[in-house]
Amino acid sequence: MITNIGTILLQKMEGKEVALRGWVHRQRVSGNMVFTVIRDPSGIMQVAVKKDKVGEKDWKDANDAYVESSLTVTGVVKKDDRAPGGYEIQATGFTLISRGEPFPIAKDLSEEFLMDVRHLWLRSQKMTAIMKARHFLDNYLREYLDEKEGFYEIAPPIITKSGCEGGSTLFEMDYFGEKAYLTQSSQMYAEVFVFALGKVYVLAPSFRAEKSRTVRHLAEYWHLEPEMAFYDQKMNMELQENMVHYAVDKMVREHPELLEACGRDVNDLKKVTLPFDRMDYAKAVDKVNELGGKMEHGQDFGADEEAILTKTRVKPLFIHNFPSDIKAFYMKDDPAKPGTVLNADLLAPAGHGEIIGGSERIWHYDELVTKMKAQKLDIKDYEWYLDLRRYGSVPHSGFGLGIERFVKWVLNLDHIRDTIPFPRTINRCYP
Amino acid sequence: MITNIGTILLQKMEGKEVALRGWVHRQRVSGNMVFTVIRDPSGIMQVAVKKDKVGEKDWKDANDAYVESSLTVTGVVKKDDRAPGGYEIQATGFTLISRGEPFPIAKDLSEEFLMDVRHLWLRSQKMTAIMKARHFLDNYLREYLDEKEGFYEIAPPIITKSGCEGGSTLFEMDYFGEKAYLTQSSQMYAEVFVFALGKVYVLAPSFRAEKSRTVRHLAEYWHLEPEMAFYDQKMNMELQENMVHYAVDKMVREHPELLEACGRDVNDLKKVTLPFDRMDYAKAVDKVNELGGKMEHGQDFGADEEAILTKTRVKPLFIHNFPSDIKAFYMKDDPAKPGTVLNADLLAPAGHGEIIGGSERIWHYDELVTKMKAQKLDIKDYEWYLDLRRYGSVPHSGFGLGIERFVKWVLNLDHIRDTIPFPRTINRCYP
Repeated sequence: MITNIGTILLQKMEGKEVALRGWVHRQRVSGNMVFTVIRDPSGIMQVAVKKDKVGEKDWKDANDAYVESSLTVTGVVKKDDRAPGGYEIQATGFTLISRGEPFPIAKDLSEEFLMDVRHLWLRSQKMTAIMKARHFLDNYLREYLDEKEGFYEIAPPIITKSGCEGGSTLFEMDYFGEKAYLTQSSQMYAEVFVFALGKVYVLAPSFRAEKSRTVRHLAEYWHLEPEMAFYDQKMNMELQENMVHYAVDKMVREHPELLEACGRDVNDLKKVTLPFDRMDYAKAVDKVNELGGKMEHGQDFGADEEAILTKTRVKPLFIHNFPSDIKAFYMKDDPAKPGTVLNADLLAPAGHGEIIGGSERIWHYDELVTKMKAQKLDIKDYEWYLDLRRYGSVPHSGFGLGIERFVKWVLNLDHIRDTIPFPRTINRCYP
Repeated sequence: MITNIGTILLQKMEGKEVALRGWVHRQRVSGNMVFTVIRDPSGIMQVAVKKDKVGEKDWKDANDAYVESSLTVTGVVKKDDRAPGGYEIQATGFTLISRGEPFPIAKDLSEEFLMDVRHLWLRSQKMTAIMKARHFLDNYLREYLDEKEGFYEIAPPIITKSGCEGGSTLFEMDYFGEKAYLTQSSQMYAEVFVFALGKVYVLAPSFRAEKSRTVRHLAEYWHLEPEMAFYDQKMNMELQENMVHYAVDKMVREHPELLEACGRDVNDLKKVTLPFDRMDYAKAVDKVNELGGKMEHGQDFGADEEAILTKTRVKPLFIHNFPSDIKAFYMKDDPAKPGTVLNADLLAPAGHGEIIGGSERIWHYDELVTKMKAQKLDIKDYEWYLDLRRYGSVPHSGFGLGIERFVKWVLNLDHIRDTIPFPRTINRCYP
């Protein structure tokens, strides 16, 4: 009966005989002893192989093992304060499943090389912890929307005939002889469903052919895009903060060990309490300038300005009421603050910056057409979208959260590329 | 305080004053009465508007309403056996939110037109029920893997440098000046993780540029692809049947109303019990011929043959041990039955056909290379995949389930296009 490392540690199986399957994490040979730290999907554990306690073949296998060789080990669990996790296994058997070749990843390798062997680097302790954490964070976001708020998830199309946010960053493809594009956002498709299902979301890949080489851009990313009938912008922002808080709070309570494995100080995340902070766009611009940045009213925030605004904060900050003319055509003007829209970007604290953009949508046909014309869009590219305002339109709001940016913040990672297994950037789509 | 139709019916709110928001489903004017059946995301309900019970403006609104106009209604709930659901609302107020234009969808419209106005057709009762059912089915599949089996979900890349199942059905695209392709399967990427996370799955879009115009092909579909370390083909098949059974059984128990709204006989699904049926490939070929089909040993099953095999069945059928040379290079040969692989396709009953393809994977480097050469594949296109066998390889298995084919079967739909909101087929990627 095979067990796993997590179970041994959790159940404190001291003195028990166990069998494990795993991989060599690191190894040290010392006379008639081999100390092998092995890993399995649930953790790492030291195995002490003593020459006179195992058969000849097993002793040879223990000596022959490379880093990342796969193996089966049997033995007795002993308490040992020097071992990682406080326990070690004194081996009675050690069999290589596959010795394989010497593992190509050691210390101090270049970032470029690690990206070339990404399929192997993903086995590292840190990448494994990140992928597990991302799994749980995705689940908590879904769980909040599904169970707490009664949303339906919808599968959007990926191949489309037109872009949502403008043509310059579209990936073009050949679709059975016709030009088509990879979706940049499923917002418009999600809007279709507010008239039938009320509250819906999409969680799917989006694509942007952006030439940016920054720590927060990916050409291919996962996008959570909820749309809600009868929500105004105030309700929209409350939903966002409740959802983000739910996921962060649950992560802190259920998987602090993964947060720590990623190098995130769990106490910092405990300060992410409700409500989040709110600041008007105009005030935020003044604040940037006051804090040593330099920007003019009417400009959008870049990564530097967002870093300035959030550097010393402990919880996310909504910046709301952006100037109408620097924001997308579908955002509703705020009747109470002419020239601005009912929108907000949500910036993560400690310099991470934007994780959500959201707004109340224009739901009147004439208002939408007027704004599209002002932004010089071609109405005929949006006929089906305009239909949503022609037939039984209702007020609605929505937002888009970039999963990788969210994960980058929650795990406090330096670079967005480590939030996704196989990052696609301007100079890489391999492996 | 706004309520919804589902709550009124569930709580049998007879005699209560309620307020609802919704859309006109259908309408009949009769003298000084307007009978409006309205829908909201939770159901449909009849509203009786009597001229002398509402204000003048409200009476005009009720008379002016089009099918799909959005509205708010207030009134008192009365039992009425003639009304859908057994209750009706006697209106005290009726206000159009947006009257809009006459709705373009009436009865007897062509399939082509309905695809052109898909963004509106998705509001229909049947499409709404299908989308809700798909949401729950997706959730139950995930729930089984996450909670019952401890899988991790992984985000795969969509843009890749090579195909998994051969080049002829790849969609090509321009990736910053280089040729790249949309993924046909995330299997190989999922395999990366069995060495670190043990049991993983991907649930993401896959793409096939197939020129087939059939009731079961889509150019863009959602693909559930689990991979499991240390699973042999027997465990793989057991996992598949347990997962499928879990989702179907939970759907029957929790949402029979959605199944019925899709036209599915719930009693038929109750016959989907464990274990599923199993048949050897060779026997299945004989069976096809015996039942009036015509195929030779060594051929693969097409839709017709699968229909013949499953037409009179009540539960899914595994066909296992296909000839090695008609199956993918990564499938492990069965040492007990030379010339065949350790694989199985799972066919849904009642003519629906294949929903899953799975196999034990070759995990030895030499065995994999030999088979790739026999299938005339270019080894250098698979270098990173071969690395998975170079370093600490372990036995593993996996499978791919087509979400839309699964939904088509569970809901007993005629055509796969209705399982997905915006189907992409050879002649359509709009809206």
